[in-house]
Amino acid sequence: MSEDYRSMWTELGLDLEAHDALLGVLGQAYQDIYLAQKDRPEGMGYFDFVMSEVHGLRIKELLDEKTAGRKIVGSYCVFVPEEIVLAANATLVGLCSGADFATEDVERLLPRNTCALIKSAFGFKLGKVCPYLESADMIVGENTCDGKKKAYESLAGLVDNLYVMDLPQVKHENGRALLKAEYNRFKDAMESLTGVSITADSLKQAIRTVNAKRAALHRLSALRKADPAPISGLDALLANQVFFYDNPTRFTDSVNKICDELEKRIEAEQGVFPEKTPRVLVAGCPQAVPNWKLPMIVETTGAVIVGEESCVGERGTRNLTDESGETVEAMLDAIVDRYFKVDCAIFTPNPDRLDHIQQMVADYRADGVIHYGLQFCQPYLMESIPVEKALEEAQIPCLRLETDYSMEDVGQLKTRVEAFVELLK
Amino acid sequence: MSEDYRSMWTELGLDLEAHDALLGVLGQAYQDIYLAQKDRPEGMGYFDFVMSEVHGLRIKELLDEKTAGRKIVGSYCVFVPEEIVLAANATLVGLCSGADFATEDVERLLPRNTCALIKSAFGFKLGKVCPYLESADMIVGENTCDGKKKAYESLAGLVDNLYVMDLPQVKHENGRALLKAEYNRFKDAMESLTGVSITADSLKQAIRTVNAKRAALHRLSALRKADPAPISGLDALLANQVFFYDNPTRFTDSVNKICDELEKRIEAEQGVFPEKTPRVLVAGCPQAVPNWKLPMIVETTGAVIVGEESCVGERGTRNLTDESGETVEAMLDAIVDRYFKVDCAIFTPNPDRLDHIQQMVADYRADGVIHYGLQFCQPYLMESIPVEKALEEAQIPCLRLETDYSMEDVGQLKTRVEAFVELLK
Ligand code: SF4
Ligand code: SF4
Repeated sequence: MSEDYRSMWTELGLDLEAHDALLGVLGQAYQDIYLAQKDRPEGMGYFDFVMSEVHGLRIKELLDEKTAGRKIVGSYCVFVPEEIVLAANATLVGLCSGADFATEDVERLLPRNTCALIKSAFGFKLGKVCPYLESADMIVGENTCDGKKKAYESLAGLVDNLYVMDLPQVKHENGRALLKAEYNRFKDAMESLTGVSITADSLKQAIRTVNAKRAALHRLSALRKADPAPISGLDALLANQVFFYDNPTRFTDSVNKICDELEKRIEAEQGVFPEKTPRVLVAGCPQAVPNWKLPMIVETTGAVIVGEESCVGERGTRNLTDESGETVEAMLDAIVDRYFKVDCAIFTPNPDRLDHIQQMVADYRADGVIHYGLQFCQPYLMESIPVEKALEEAQIPCLRLETDYSMEDVGQLKTRVEAFVELLK
Repeated sequence: MSEDYRSMWTELGLDLEAHDALLGVLGQAYQDIYLAQKDRPEGMGYFDFVMSEVHGLRIKELLDEKTAGRKIVGSYCVFVPEEIVLAANATLVGLCSGADFATEDVERLLPRNTCALIKSAFGFKLGKVCPYLESADMIVGENTCDGKKKAYESLAGLVDNLYVMDLPQVKHENGRALLKAEYNRFKDAMESLTGVSITADSLKQAIRTVNAKRAALHRLSALRKADPAPISGLDALLANQVFFYDNPTRFTDSVNKICDELEKRIEAEQGVFPEKTPRVLVAGCPQAVPNWKLPMIVETTGAVIVGEESCVGERGTRNLTDESGETVEAMLDAIVDRYFKVDCAIFTPNPDRLDHIQQMVADYRADGVIHYGLQFCQPYLMESIPVEKALEEAQIPCLRLETDYSMEDVGQLKTRVEAFVELLK
């Protein structure tokens, strides 16, 4: 890392020693998990670069944007509409994190029995190791699960500009009305943050930009239907993770470049794993960088992951926003329609998700589903039981796992995954 | 128990053997915990009788009401407005339960990491031991915590007539509008269940009936300000528990009768514990029958409980509904206003609760607060940390406990409570 970055981090208020330690662990994990893979697409070189510069070049870019008068908005949830952020001339970055940090300090503010994702978000703040969080001009929370909803009350005391968005719990008319009211309120908040009024032009452009990056991931997903799989689940997950903080246009181009390459691979019947390798769909909780634990276990156990039914995956990206509206209001309505379809387990009932998982199994020709639940995540752990039941009825094997960010249970998980993969052969 | 009851239970579909076992445990616990207390008010004899007939006479009454054409509605939450139920000529009974049952079966439908209250509700259904649940013509669920919200999706497959009420999470205008829409929808559902239209007269009468039982508990609470305390926390908790399933008018009369007696005791400076016994306020999760674990520990450890900041306690009963409206619509508005004040931890932010706890400490002259959290209850466990912080700032001692319905941790809890009570002396 260059000296420039060190002074940049210092100015952001990071704890350099702790941050060095984090980057050390992250770099080593990336080496061991990602770079150790065989036959990766060449286009993944871009993501290797992104990851090596995740706290460097990308942060410098964001700070340059800030110098040029643009605002940075951080979020923890796919319900925060990037279209509105972009249209107000701001940049959205995802803040969810996938590693434990400063756990002792975190447990003074949150119960021990809180999911690893929330704890991690607090740990990165308290440990002063997240340059994205420290770059953000506004942080947007949202009332999804009880854990996050209540955690934002404490986070408000730790960050400068926390904005909390309410969300519905039921997909009826009233719920849609609430989402619409909240997106309108968010639009106003973004406009007053940036001083830029959202116009029909800027909103249409923003919708196109975000749709383009979603469409690139749709293209990537579709290519994963091939057997042999042209790309590992680990690499595809990484693309889904980088989706949340890379420059949107560059991200889209890079994913499309990988897709060009994968098409050639498929034509040449070339894959990252042999043909007929058991194919697994992962469904459940989001996996944020650097939480590569489950795919690492699965893909070193003789199976390949062919899809992620997750916020960091198809739940987050599958629907496009209708681009045909000509007024801000019409496009806002389209945005509400698009996000109201997201089948997060916080909704009750949530039958779409059960259907979607089965649809994904069929589309990606998965042999079985691993339901990934973070310990203490009530919405997804609760819903994993009906998911398993629906899959059983459709005679699709399902393995429900519950874990956290620690490495203590890797051996035990590996044993269970091994047995499951055996079953899929 | 008379043979009549056995055939009544059989007709309700109870599992007689399991039910006998439950009643055996319940009776023994009541003997050991309640009847072992000294110097109880004579008026508690009524509650002793109620408890001895909890699955007997009261169920017979409910079945007689059903025979006479009245409907029985079961609920798990203080957000279900009893006023509307009564006005439609139905009877509301609380279904929350405070004992583990059929845990193995429950954990096939719910994650192990689910709060004891929710598990207990499922256990009583799966084990076929709750005559209230089996008597109910309609069961009302509500979207409070994630645990309950998602659990109702599974409960729907176990009971005949589950109605789920949506609830807001934020106390702004939109939240109030949602509550109002949902109470209107509930009114329609009640009317179609009973075939009885709610009129201004019936609604006014219902509001008066429910207010009267709340007012009786207010009177009881006020008398607990005295030192020495004229009634134990155990006995006061029992009154708050019976509130949920007794005949409203008889309940009101019985509580008022106890209050008459307590007034005389106070005049005579007579108490259940010596003067200057350390006084504890219990705040947090609801304690449903027969969950008497915490007060039993506290009151056998040299302290007296002088208030319950809980749904089964002052959070549930403190506000009255304005009786002055003359139209159904005006009264429904008053009902919405009343319930929208309930400071449940599912709301974010929830500053009223912090204030109310401190107000209760002052009102009841408590020396300290025990925050009672059920394990895996995210809303209350999360909120217990700011509660503790606010109390610390006000120099009010606070002990945060996290437990469940099992008796395994009684020794450990007792040790912690002992140390806390020492501190209050
Ligand atoms: S993993 Fe579950 S509990 Fe954790 S933030 Fe996401 S929805 Fe909430
Ligand atoms: S105790 Fe907590 S988790 Fe359990 S039902 Fe009540 S609010 Fe929900």
